[in-house]
Amino acid sequence: MSEYSRDSRYITTRITADGRDGYPVEPGRYRLVVARACPWANRMIIVRRLLGLEDVLSMGVCGPVHDERSWTFDLDPGGKDPVLGIERLQEAYFKRVPGYELGITVPAIVEIATGEVVTNDFAQMTIDLSLEWTAHHREGAPALYPEHLRAEIDEVNDVVFRDVNNGVYRAGFASDQDSYEKAYRRLFDRLDWLSDRLAGQRYLVGDTITEADVRLFTTLARFDAVYHGHFKCNRSKLNEMPVLWAYARDLFQTPGFGDTIDFVQIKQHYYEVHRDINPTGIVPVGPDLRNWLTPHGREELGGRPFGDGTPPGPPPAAETVPADNGPVAA
Amino acid sequence: MSEYSRDSRYITTRITADGRDGYPVEPGRYRLVVARACPWANRMIIVRRLLGLEDVLSMGVCGPVHDERSWTFDLDPGGKDPVLGIERLQEAYFKRVPGYELGITVPAIVEIATGEVVTNDFAQMTIDLSLEWTAHHREGAPALYPEHLRAEIDEVNDVVFRDVNNGVYRAGFASDQDSYEKAYRRLFDRLDWLSDRLAGQRYLVGDTITEADVRLFTTLARFDAVYHGHFKCNRSKLNEMPVLWAYARDLFQTPGFGDTIDFVQIKQHYYEVHRDINPTGIVPVGPDLRNWLTPHGREELGGRPFGDGTPPGPPPAAETVPADNGPVAA
Repeated sequence: MSEYSRDSRYITTRITADGRDGYPVEPGRYRLVVARACPWANRMIIVRRLLGLEDVLSMGVCGPVHDERSWTFDLDPGGKDPVLGIERLQEAYFKRVPGYELGITVPAIVEIATGEVVTNDFAQMTIDLSLEWTAHHREGAPALYPEHLRAEIDEVNDVVFRDVNNGVYRAGFASDQDSYEKAYRRLFDRLDWLSDRLAGQRYLVGDTITEADVRLFTTLARFDAVYHGHFKCNRSKLNEMPVLWAYARDLFQTPGFGDTIDFVQIKQHYYEVHRDINPTGIVPVGPDLRNWLTPHGREELGGRPFGDGTPPGPPPAAETVPADNGPVAA
Repeated sequence: MSEYSRDSRYITTRITADGRDGYPVEPGRYRLVVARACPWANRMIIVRRLLGLEDVLSMGVCGPVHDERSWTFDLDPGGKDPVLGIERLQEAYFKRVPGYELGITVPAIVEIATGEVVTNDFAQMTIDLSLEWTAHHREGAPALYPEHLRAEIDEVNDVVFRDVNNGVYRAGFASDQDSYEKAYRRLFDRLDWLSDRLAGQRYLVGDTITEADVRLFTTLARFDAVYHGHFKCNRSKLNEMPVLWAYARDLFQTPGFGDTIDFVQIKQHYYEVHRDINPTGIVPVGPDLRNWLTPHGREELGGRPFGDGTPPGPPPAAETVPADNGPVAA
């Protein structure tokens, strides 16, 4: 098989307000497991922050580098998640489904009492945080998936997933020139399309931050640090695409977005794990990332980032990304 | 061994005006063998062009992709150099030294009658074109290695070789993180030093093009296309370093420099040959290279590119780089 294809089979159980799948929304009952490196998990970290669910849904953080079997809690003292008491995320998957044979992926939500993964269906998980956990949202939480914009958000998410979020992987993991070039063309055609769309409006859908912005942002945040070189997505760097670059910086500088980004772990993950495309495992020192903090000028387009709501406060101390892992000089 | 080390043993026989090594300068007696991909061979292509030696010293061009044994004449009809009648450059090395065990490198100069390599000592070869072949220089040929600037040119060449020309290889072929990071720091420290030097003067030494500019140029020309991603020299792209980028474009747009650059062959060479760092052999589509033709503004610094001389005319038809391999869109 020449073209990269993402395994899209997940554990699709849902945690809902009415508990119809057997897993009702309940403070303290579940633990979100993420890795800061992973763009799909990054979505959950951002949405949880924006909605203020930190005290309701705790978070375990895997290290950036996993082996063939699983993500591990190697950043925690003793190499164990302090709440779940496990070393490998795989253990929580096996508790749910003995011998689980699909990907051990983040983000995953684990029921703390049973130690079982409830779901790893990342596309549904962020939506459910927005729609099912409303009783526990912080005051001033934004509406990330408002009903009147849902169709348009879904439509944008669909093409962004196909051509951008997953498109960079299709380019990077292509095993032949032709598949790579197709993915490359689709990616940059879509980025041009997004640039046109964002030239006159501050956010992707409506005039506030939505789920659509979260999903595009996590790919853009990794673009120059990883996808440009490692995945050969190199028509230009993000910082050479003026509209998208300003849009990405605007979000980066918005509370709840940039403060979730750990560039060190992001680079370690991709460059150390994918030995098939980077056999030495050497992690580039660059790029210089201070440019993420430069003025973006997007306020001129209007828009109300949080709509009728307010920005989140700073992240809890235990979840703060070290300054050295943020936008620093190479 | 962790740090990349270039084998610096070459065949050091010299072709001189007085023929003291047995190989006198003589029109039609020798053939220069190059590959457009190779930065060391590129120096010779440029100097030969600038001095107008095309009719005196013919040129054979190997394809961009070689195997473990040798560069090959796969671009020529029947896969043979039309003058030397050989398929592999290795054959000319073996004629000179049976079982030759060092690197089969370009540039090499071959004596046509005997089919033997005379020299592959690239650092000496360009100097000898300037100083030994003077009787055959075109009218208006520039002085690339003038006596009164020689000490300064040598000094610049020395640090540029160590930290830049060879520095990018040391970064790209490092087998551990520490060696890579050392090479990366040295490279960018030196590029910063060069930027400072070139901020107020148009050329590296004196106010005309010299051997020093030729040597820096061939690395800069490959920087964004290859070294930035493939060799992880990614603090920034060349086009993000304003002084060096303007300097490089100035030279690129000078007859004899940019018209020797084949970006397609350059990318093919590095990405297809170095399977140890690019196992798939996939060649990136990017970057968009049209920016090489944008105005550079360096004329304001004064300088007289060719001194008392004149620019060379266009390259011979047979040696013209196809437009599609030049600075085109990705």
